[in-house]
Amino acid sequence: MVAIVDVGITRFGKRVESIFELVGEATRNLLKYPIDFIVLSNSYSGEFNEISGLNNLISTYLSLDNVPSIRVDNTSGSGGSAILVAKSLLESKEANAVLVLGAEKMSEKKTRQVTKIISSLLPESERVSSLPSLASLATIEYMKKYDATRESIAQVAVKNHYNGSLNPYAHIQKRVTLDEVLNSPIISEPLRLFEFTPISDGAAALLMVRNEDALSYTNKPVFIKGVGFSSYTSFIADRENFTELPSVRKAGEIAIKKSHVERIDFAELHDMATILEIIQSEELGFFKKGEGWKAVINGTTEINGDIPLNTSGGLNSKGHPIGVSGIAQAIEAFYQIRNEAGNRQVKNAKTGLSLSMAGFGNSSTVIIYGDEY
Amino acid sequence: MVAIVDVGITRFGKRVESIFELVGEATRNLLKYPIDFIVLSNSYSGEFNEISGLNNLISTYLSLDNVPSIRVDNTSGSGGSAILVAKSLLESKEANAVLVLGAEKMSEKKTRQVTKIISSLLPESERVSSLPSLASLATIEYMKKYDATRESIAQVAVKNHYNGSLNPYAHIQKRVTLDEVLNSPIISEPLRLFEFTPISDGAAALLMVRNEDALSYTNKPVFIKGVGFSSYTSFIADRENFTELPSVRKAGEIAIKKSHVERIDFAELHDMATILEIIQSEELGFFKKGEGWKAVINGTTEINGDIPLNTSGGLNSKGHPIGVSGIAQAIEAFYQIRNEAGNRQVKNAKTGLSLSMAGFGNSSTVIIYGDEY
Ligand SMILES: [Ca+2]
Repeated sequence: MVAIVDVGITRFGKRVESIFELVGEATRNLLKYPIDFIVLSNSYSGEFNEISGLNNLISTYLSLDNVPSIRVDNTSGSGGSAILVAKSLLESKEANAVLVLGAEKMSEKKTRQVTKIISSLLPESERVSSLPSLASLATIEYMKKYDATRESIAQVAVKNHYNGSLNPYAHIQKRVTLDEVLNSPIISEPLRLFEFTPISDGAAALLMVRNEDALSYTNKPVFIKGVGFSSYTSFIADRENFTELPSVRKAGEIAIKKSHVERIDFAELHDMATILEIIQSEELGFFKKGEGWKAVINGTTEINGDIPLNTSGGLNSKGHPIGVSGIAQAIEAFYQIRNEAGNRQVKNAKTGLSLSMAGFGNSSTVIIYGDEY
Repeated sequence: MVAIVDVGITRFGKRVESIFELVGEATRNLLKYPIDFIVLSNSYSGEFNEISGLNNLISTYLSLDNVPSIRVDNTSGSGGSAILVAKSLLESKEANAVLVLGAEKMSEKKTRQVTKIISSLLPESERVSSLPSLASLATIEYMKKYDATRESIAQVAVKNHYNGSLNPYAHIQKRVTLDEVLNSPIISEPLRLFEFTPISDGAAALLMVRNEDALSYTNKPVFIKGVGFSSYTSFIADRENFTELPSVRKAGEIAIKKSHVERIDFAELHDMATILEIIQSEELGFFKKGEGWKAVINGTTEINGDIPLNTSGGLNSKGHPIGVSGIAQAIEAFYQIRNEAGNRQVKNAKTGLSLSMAGFGNSSTVIIYGDEY
């Protein structure tokens, strides 16, 4: 198995710097290590930045010319996939110290172009849909099926903006009230602007090594205890409903089984829209089906609640530079388990979980982190 | 270690089918296996086809909805990287039967657009260059330094078109004479059209498993005995010269060392331009520096020569659907070692080598194949 021994991250947001400069900022403290492989998590450098071969250009930019590199893409779920690939490269001894990079520069394109580009992950026949419209369908269906209140769903944004206000790397470091959420501009009825992730630039980096080497890097490694990777249909028309995410459920089951942990102390979920955090919290077994919305209202998912979700601010407030999100989730886990999460520290955080999801659950990677081997 | 137990490939060329249909054709005989992971080698679906998340769309298209998938990109070298990732996934037991897919549909764009998109792998300050112009610089420098004849370089195209004429999957199945090569249209002085790879569509697929499982799939597995992966600067201005490809040399040394083979019976090289096959044949140690051109003239690199190069036709005649080439090389190795290469069969082919290269040697993956564990 493998461990994360150091990390670096930029503030997310609309950044004036180039994608290379963002990577430089995120890796500033990591270049001292004997890196022998770079796994880049990036989805859209061709579409957003007119750059191909970004991994090779980055290795040259970082003066790591002789370090081989690849780019791993799985759209929004790229980060989780990149971590899985790094884990395998280490375990198979093809590499000994992997720099896992996330980088995405989205703000060079207009919002409409970004939405169009991201919708290109839908089957051609279904591109009349978009991920926001699917989230709104899920919201309507969820509220109806489980008698959930509209406020409970918006409350996810209130919580995550609060958490984000405590995270110096978050895009939106501003608290919002329930009223403000519910009165923000409509994106896709009934969901509002503050319930979606903003368009962000950013970069993040992990140094990963095998367990047996970890203590020579730090006395507080964060161990990856298990990874679950699962997939579901890309065809929207094939979904039985929008309130279930089978790939999330299955990836969670695999990861929990592999990692032999008894409880999860916190989790970073893929809240591209507020409703997704609720559905995911159920699919991962934190709550029974149809009960996730109550947990939000009860404060169960707040930093001091029983199972804090998205202490980083989540995609909702931290931002969602596509290929970076899964890497940033691992960084939040790193900080929490090392007791370095500042004002948003979860008490006694020993084990954590992250969910990196592609499309509307087309694929999901669940990673379990712990303070022990 | 790992083995290739079955393969599938489409004919390369200007194809009317969609990228999905090409993948369907290449995988037709592979879907019966218990595939539990898909590694897609593809570089430019966003740029060429306006598709993102291609791996997830393909798994749905193939009715392998529940099989997790990722996309691996390393521009022209994607295929080698994808095979390395698949090997690691198997060795780390994250997967048991990996479908390694190469797919690229280039002909939807005009040649000028394709060239522009591929040049986006060069640093922004150096995009006045293009890969063909670098190949022509290498040709001029090589001829001057080693007193090589112009004919010796063009002869690579004669040989590879001949080999391609024997390969039912090759794009250009037509022999050409030395005169025809030297009189074909100038692309970048002194190199001519027939010395470059055409723009091709295509798909190819491997089924890879761990060695210990291989014999339950076939009585003739082809084993991957070692992989070398190396990198060099992406900055053209940092190159000492154009007649050396340090990443090729180093990747070759690593692969040979890891695989403990005593000789190589044939090799598939990355002949994006004729000159590259010659330089690569030297960097890989088949010939001394400056002697590769003589080997072409002497027939040493022909199918019945001492070290046959690009029996498949190479990129030059088989075609070069970017993400597919490295996978197609492995397929040629599979056919040769199993004695299934028809009219282009190398006698007693027990071990083979392939070189998958990104950019102008920005990164190189060398894979050694053998008929034994
Ligand atoms: Ca490089």
